[in-house]
Amino acid sequence: MAEQQTLGDLGEFELIDIIARGLAPGGTTSAESVLVGPGDDGAVLRLAGDRAVVSTDVLVEGVHFRRDWSTAIQVGRKAVAVNVSDIEAMGARPVGLVLGFSAPADLPVTWLRYLVQGIAEECATAGVWAVGGDVTRADQVVLSVTVIGDLADREPVRRNGARAGDVVAVLGTLGWAAAGYSVLRRGFGSPRAVVNAHKVPSVPYGQGRVAAEAGASAMIDVSDGLLSDLGHIAAASEVTIDVLTDAFEIAEPVQAVASATGASPLVFMLTGGEDHALAATFAPHDVPAGWNVIGRVLPYQDGPRVTVDGGEWDGATGWDHFRR
Amino acid sequence: MAEQQTLGDLGEFELIDIIARGLAPGGTTSAESVLVGPGDDGAVLRLAGDRAVVSTDVLVEGVHFRRDWSTAIQVGRKAVAVNVSDIEAMGARPVGLVLGFSAPADLPVTWLRYLVQGIAEECATAGVWAVGGDVTRADQVVLSVTVIGDLADREPVRRNGARAGDVVAVLGTLGWAAAGYSVLRRGFGSPRAVVNAHKVPSVPYGQGRVAAEAGASAMIDVSDGLLSDLGHIAAASEVTIDVLTDAFEIAEPVQAVASATGASPLVFMLTGGEDHALAATFAPHDVPAGWNVIGRVLPYQDGPRVTVDGGEWDGATGWDHFRR
Repeated sequence: MAEQQTLGDLGEFELIDIIARGLAPGGTTSAESVLVGPGDDGAVLRLAGDRAVVSTDVLVEGVHFRRDWSTAIQVGRKAVAVNVSDIEAMGARPVGLVLGFSAPADLPVTWLRYLVQGIAEECATAGVWAVGGDVTRADQVVLSVTVIGDLADREPVRRNGARAGDVVAVLGTLGWAAAGYSVLRRGFGSPRAVVNAHKVPSVPYGQGRVAAEAGASAMIDVSDGLLSDLGHIAAASEVTIDVLTDAFEIAEPVQAVASATGASPLVFMLTGGEDHALAATFAPHDVPAGWNVIGRVLPYQDGPRVTVDGGEWDGATGWDHFRR
Repeated sequence: MAEQQTLGDLGEFELIDIIARGLAPGGTTSAESVLVGPGDDGAVLRLAGDRAVVSTDVLVEGVHFRRDWSTAIQVGRKAVAVNVSDIEAMGARPVGLVLGFSAPADLPVTWLRYLVQGIAEECATAGVWAVGGDVTRADQVVLSVTVIGDLADREPVRRNGARAGDVVAVLGTLGWAAAGYSVLRRGFGSPRAVVNAHKVPSVPYGQGRVAAEAGASAMIDVSDGLLSDLGHIAAASEVTIDVLTDAFEIAEPVQAVASATGASPLVFMLTGGEDHALAATFAPHDVPAGWNVIGRVLPYQDGPRVTVDGGEWDGATGWDHFRR
């Protein structure tokens, strides 16, 4: 049997070529916003307006994904999804993406090809174009993704605009990724729905702009956990947010994992990270269709920034990458 | 003696706070282009015009820098410099920068503080603002920097515009970083000028725009080595570039290293990477003040894309991160 070809067998330029070809804009819809794509010192994007929204996320092997848990396609899709999610949370339209790819020389070329396929697939789903990048050696796979978005004539939706009297609404799954992680950690592979949610978040693409146009006063993507991320809005807006647990529909696969592991499904939903749902505050009559109202904004009172059913939450609020 | 504090002793939010405070725009000059800075899901930049130039570079410990060779300040400065250099090479003005910071939990907090200081210093020199980022654990220090620039009303200067009859001009040092690397690799620390050039490149900030306004037909930053990078212009422009060695002034510290190591100074200057000089092609009467003409653009003939004094160069042409 032939030895598997690795990155070390390729030159740097062959490697760049594999990535650039795999990510090359396939359709004519790119022509409008991508003025210069990969292969020059920088890419040039045409924006709607003169304001650029920028967000960056780094995914590290062994921290954000495991090569024995996730396929390369899934890793590529996740790297795009978590980043575009931040652009959505500003109420912006994603336009262009650049990729920093670091990997050990013994990484199979096949893994890279599937990674690139996953990136291309998720870019197409999100409506964003990969326009450049950098490749380098490293001891583990590190993916650094930066997405540029535009706002057209909308104002960015920040974290600091929530007002007492607003309601809190979410769109997207909550607790699925955490339930999936809990299953995978125990060596199981089902329920598939939550396991897949951990591997590739289902970002509600386009809904950030919908929320912005509906008049969202504050918005965030739920990456650390709902209570933790609502805490960021509450702190920036100098308000208190009260989460109403009656408002949550507990999804069947999350319930199943909770029952099997002896956990509460609410813990997954309130504190689980990595689902990348959108959470936003609106005046009560502004909530867009499909968004689920799960709480309300109150004047700040001494005490916790975020309460659950009017009281203090006594569990963990979210993730911490260094202490965990 | 107290144990040195490490990143593992901090929470993720404390860590982000150290970085955000260290990089906070200090002056009022930021107000114009930074509409939303760090601390939200994304940053918002105001550009001159509706075109954004984007470039990303990843610096990996052990590949691009060594913690026992370079101070943290130098690493931070280099991470900014190599990236802004790409924006300059498009003829653009750097506006905002985002940083992906990955590091092991045992990294001293002091190292991080100096890194941030170096980033802030070089950002100030380059005229760019750090506006956001991401932090995560990794086995080695990985810095992922993405810079956004704007073009105002200029066209981007690409690699594919060189025409027969143009001259090739460079601005910045050539061979200094490679000479410095050669010295460091042998365990020496002088000449300081070349050693420092390896640690922090001296990017000719602002000169990319000068070249663009003077009518540069093609431009690149010299990161892989002059012959290698001129080869990219020659290939993209479908021309041949002939480098004239008589035109090079051999700098004293490069000459000194060459003499001491038995190498030719020209090898450093023609093939050494990481100096981040700018190389551009111009109509002969368009060369801006301060730029040094070192070659000419010829119609493409069969054979090598880049020649030296009319003949084929027989040494290596540049760097390759995976094969080296």
